[in-house]
Amino acid sequence: MLNVGIIGATGYAGEELISLLLRHEGVRITSISAKIPQPQDISDIFPKLKGKIKLICKEPDIKEIIKLTDLVFLALPHTVSMELAPLLLKAGKRVIDLSADYRFADTAVYEKFYQTKQKDPANLAQAVYGLPEIYRAKIKGAKLIANPGCYPTASILGLAPLLALGQVDLASIIIDAKSGVTGAGRKLAEGFLFSEINEDFKAYKVNAHQHAPEINQELSKLAGKKVSVTFVPHLLPLNRGILATIYVKKGAKAAKKGQSLIDLYRKFYKLEPFVRIKKERQFPRLKDVVGTNFCDIGIKEEGGSVIIISAIDNLLKGASGQAVQNMNIACGFAENTAL
Amino acid sequence: MLNVGIIGATGYAGEELISLLLRHEGVRITSISAKIPQPQDISDIFPKLKGKIKLICKEPDIKEIIKLTDLVFLALPHTVSMELAPLLLKAGKRVIDLSADYRFADTAVYEKFYQTKQKDPANLAQAVYGLPEIYRAKIKGAKLIANPGCYPTASILGLAPLLALGQVDLASIIIDAKSGVTGAGRKLAEGFLFSEINEDFKAYKVNAHQHAPEINQELSKLAGKKVSVTFVPHLLPLNRGILATIYVKKGAKAAKKGQSLIDLYRKFYKLEPFVRIKKERQFPRLKDVVGTNFCDIGIKEEGGSVIIISAIDNLLKGASGQAVQNMNIACGFAENTAL
Amino acid sequence: MLNVGIIGATGYAGEELISLLLRHEGVRITSISAKIPQPQDISDIFPKLKGKIKLICKEPDIKEIIKLTDLVFLALPHTVSMELAPLLLKAGKRVIDLSADYRFADTAVYEKFYQTKQKDPANLAQAVYGLPEIYRAKIKGAKLIANPGCYPTASILGLAPLLALGQVDLASIIIDAKSGVTGAGRKLAEGFLFSEINEDFKAYKVNAHQHAPEINQELSKLAGKKVSVTFVPHLLPLNRGILATIYVKKGAKAAKKGQSLIDLYRKFYKLEPFVRIKKERQFPRLKDVVGTNFCDIGIKEEGGSVIIISAIDNLLKGASGQAVQNMNIACGFAENTAL
Amino acid sequence: MLNVGIIGATGYAGEELISLLLRHEGVRITSISAKIPQPQDISDIFPKLKGKIKLICKEPDIKEIIKLTDLVFLALPHTVSMELAPLLLKAGKRVIDLSADYRFADTAVYEKFYQTKQKDPANLAQAVYGLPEIYRAKIKGAKLIANPGCYPTASILGLAPLLALGQVDLASIIIDAKSGVTGAGRKLAEGFLFSEINEDFKAYKVNAHQHAPEINQELSKLAGKKVSVTFVPHLLPLNRGILATIYVKKGAKAAKKGQSLIDLYRKFYKLEPFVRIKKERQFPRLKDVVGTNFCDIGIKEEGGSVIIISAIDNLLKGASGQAVQNMNIACGFAENTAL
Repeated sequence: MLNVGIIGATGYAGEELISLLLRHEGVRITSISAKIPQPQDISDIFPKLKGKIKLICKEPDIKEIIKLTDLVFLALPHTVSMELAPLLLKAGKRVIDLSADYRFADTAVYEKFYQTKQKDPANLAQAVYGLPEIYRAKIKGAKLIANPGCYPTASILGLAPLLALGQVDLASIIIDAKSGVTGAGRKLAEGFLFSEINEDFKAYKVNAHQHAPEINQELSKLAGKKVSVTFVPHLLPLNRGILATIYVKKGAKAAKKGQSLIDLYRKFYKLEPFVRIKKERQFPRLKDVVGTNFCDIGIKEEGGSVIIISAIDNLLKGASGQAVQNMNIACGFAENTAL
Repeated sequence: MLNVGIIGATGYAGEELISLLLRHEGVRITSISAKIPQPQDISDIFPKLKGKIKLICKEPDIKEIIKLTDLVFLALPHTVSMELAPLLLKAGKRVIDLSADYRFADTAVYEKFYQTKQKDPANLAQAVYGLPEIYRAKIKGAKLIANPGCYPTASILGLAPLLALGQVDLASIIIDAKSGVTGAGRKLAEGFLFSEINEDFKAYKVNAHQHAPEINQELSKLAGKKVSVTFVPHLLPLNRGILATIYVKKGAKAAKKGQSLIDLYRKFYKLEPFVRIKKERQFPRLKDVVGTNFCDIGIKEEGGSVIIISAIDNLLKGASGQAVQNMNIACGFAENTAL
Repeated sequence: MLNVGIIGATGYAGEELISLLLRHEGVRITSISAKIPQPQDISDIFPKLKGKIKLICKEPDIKEIIKLTDLVFLALPHTVSMELAPLLLKAGKRVIDLSADYRFADTAVYEKFYQTKQKDPANLAQAVYGLPEIYRAKIKGAKLIANPGCYPTASILGLAPLLALGQVDLASIIIDAKSGVTGAGRKLAEGFLFSEINEDFKAYKVNAHQHAPEINQELSKLAGKKVSVTFVPHLLPLNRGILATIYVKKGAKAAKKGQSLIDLYRKFYKLEPFVRIKKERQFPRLKDVVGTNFCDIGIKEEGGSVIIISAIDNLLKGASGQAVQNMNIACGFAENTAL
Repeated sequence: MLNVGIIGATGYAGEELISLLLRHEGVRITSISAKIPQPQDISDIFPKLKGKIKLICKEPDIKEIIKLTDLVFLALPHTVSMELAPLLLKAGKRVIDLSADYRFADTAVYEKFYQTKQKDPANLAQAVYGLPEIYRAKIKGAKLIANPGCYPTASILGLAPLLALGQVDLASIIIDAKSGVTGAGRKLAEGFLFSEINEDFKAYKVNAHQHAPEINQELSKLAGKKVSVTFVPHLLPLNRGILATIYVKKGAKAAKKGQSLIDLYRKFYKLEPFVRIKKERQFPRLKDVVGTNFCDIGIKEEGGSVIIISAIDNLLKGASGQAVQNMNIACGFAENTAL
């Protein structure tokens, strides 16, 4: 039985983690903490959990957490993670960090987009980017896993086969992404009030979102060359889900005619338990992935152009579900346990 | 041409007032103010208005407002209104107050439910409760109009005919009310975040809402006896509209069999431009009143029980629309101008 | 391993049943059928299930279903159930019927409200009303279980303690109920189009809904006297959940002062795994029960009046979740398996 | 006073037309018709209009319509318009057709995408494409106006300045469009049920929508060369509004550095009453255009790439509002009357 802790349990990702871990037969939640005014039964914070869990949520006390846990999920805002992770790692705990703190190999990129210094380069060097479909081998046994962002998960999975096979004009990639509101976390800002978002739709951080450099880093590794995508996120008036519509031009090395991209994607993801490639002329919809850890991908080729549509639940495959998937891989559980 | 000002222009009611007044041929908006960090073009605050109005919104400067206006709408939180209204009234301006400050004849009730002292009893004495269907005669020429609350508007209009005619068991009145989210104003609280309200529904302030005593005051006047209703408001995951389902038992003096309540309501509201009584077996829905100043009422009798359903747009008949209706009556415009 | 079949698998309740049963370690889904033009992989009908189940959905073939299953869920429109149930029962299968066909002891009531004859009185006589909190003993081993309606489940659970203890003025019961749209099933009617329901709210079948006699039947049994409630259902612009706000007057035999109704409810439901009583001044919200099999109940007393708020997920505790709970009880599984 | 008729009054566009025309001081609605089982008061069909209009809606009787009207709006499905328009035109009536029947100069394109023959080539030859920002001069006095599609209106207005000035790589244009549900009309199909669309989001007719050739026709005329865009529409879970995110690469003739595209767009649309160009780093949102006849456009340049975001209300600038704008121009009213 693995003892796990969650720091930052009161956000949407934390709530989701608790629900998933409660269904996991190999795991016991032994510590729940968050920045809260005073200790409170977690089922008073989330009445939905009443009758399912009895545990007090309080301010994180690292010494106690070290005593109580084998593995800790950090569902924290960036900058806070890199303060706590070193202490946990030093004590031999496994850490799965849902923030951006350990995602960037190049600290300059992190520092530019998150406007803060990366203060833990030593652990950063050993951190594994937790996208199982690309890095499963490294995740096995990893001590520090940087759980990917939600937009990057949908975008990278949508593009990985084409980029790995060098079939794309790297200058042509456009990602038009749409996300549900939980993607922003439980943020208290006028822009996230119900009456502001309901019946509205808009783009935000137009080609200026902090997930773009994360996507670029991973696509560049896959392509073996510097990639810089155009990335425009939009805010959907719904709770959960990301759907990314991706436009690329085929490159010089593109597959011969007759070879179907759908087949190519199927082959690439053949052994993946959480990627589903749609049949021809069928495309993902949020309803089919929300509440699941799946990434659904649909593809349409037309002459030299390719349209790829990729959909996930931003709180599951885009955050807590993927975190549990990473834990399962790192700790030797069946990969789909509790998912 | 009547020069009007709006203090508290940046809330939902203020925004709605501007839109209505821009359509009013007898009125010119000459002053717009609100608690804001620095002066700003109102069409930068509400980009929807771009190309429709050019006016700077700034902190209220009473002297300037007095110079620029004949009539002032106060779309302010309670307690603020009773600080500004006396200054405006003293300068001979007409005031239509959308807050609760001047709604209660009995200051003790106000003070109990709003937890603050009524500091302007002199003007309170001359304030008219701005429900035209009941107080039209007094509204004509009134200097200070206390615009009714949204729940009270729907509830009182739904019950007035029965109470005025003494046909109700006064101890039996239950009002189960449901409101869209703009009813709460542009309030920055976790409970009003999109992800909290979307796909949720709940009761709040169960039989403890500050609109209950306002309803009781008016129903008591109509009945000529003390009335105390059971009032449970609920929060709907939609932007606009209030629908109240009202349950009463008929009293001893109830109409004889054969006399239809629908006819009785039709007669009572015969000359009202903004009350519509539904046919038998038809009931109001929000869609039919949202965006209008109408109150739709449907009635079902069954033995000694009566079910009345009353619906309004909380920002129009429940706030800014009724405020403009009151202005029209007070200033001698056709009552439905701009509505 | 119990082999189960689902007839009527393509509706919302059917889809939910499949999802629940796939998580149930003691059960194997061996037959899925529905009225469909041609056989189709169930995961093509519900792409969400892709990768979770491989089974062809086709027109029900009773002989084959009898061969393949031990227990059959009927997620069918009323009248169809009573045609198929007799065949399954005769072959010794256990049947859990989600329709209204076997819910009414008095066929005259059924026939009046469903406008069709009850054609299977023999089996009706042995049918058990599947509300575990009231009939658990009879459900154990039952061959034919009539799964309750969604509104009745929320309403009866909200009222049972008071009625069982005789503390209510039976003439005073008012149930103001609000339901999400899946409650109506996947019905193709203009009134259920997105643009008709979104941003709308209304009452329907005002005190004329077919669930009222079902509530009356069960409350009458609990009270030992004929009960006739006032029941007004409303349609919420959201997918899932029922919240019923219930108003009653205390009766002559009401509990003495000092005795708290919350304590009384806690005691009544002490051993129930799926009923949660809220603390004083706390009330249910849909968010806390949607996605669960719980019924949350909040209570407020005030003088001689009581307000009870009861909330469930209409597709889980109000349909498929309760059906699985009934299966668990009838077949000897732990009652909360898969729930 | 202009007498106008509406054929096809019971759809969303028809309902919107009635509301707009009721506010128009130069117009009297004299005939309302639609395919309905039996004549019905239009305010029974749309209870929202009760108290605003008294007119019977019935099956269209062309002879009577000719007698009663000077101008007729056809809010009909395609193919029906081209049966009625010739009769009205022959009788000297002005016709504004909201369907696609008269939008395509090349009947082969129409016939391919709408799968039916264009049966009225004579009148097609004189039809004017009713996009005032491009064809105002021709619309003045036009007898037959083909009101543009909703996606084409948003897309063409977003691209017109760049294409008219030849600054775009014509092979690079990608339009990622998102529409509210009323865009599909009051269509009775499972895909448009509330529970299917609410909390869902998806692309549809991926690069295969019938509005793409309409966009291509108009952009080709503006560019003076054949243009073929990539067009992917998506369905938003909200009632009204279209937001198109458009991606283009600058062409060889692109403006010199230092010249701002925002300025260029401002200049191009300088005299337009219904196009608003956003400031730098500001972008449209649906809330600002819904309920108005405005098209809001925001622009971001980055190296050789341009992102343009264009937003309209699909029922106003995308349908009925634009139809009234066209009527105003054609008949000599002030262009913004009733808008």
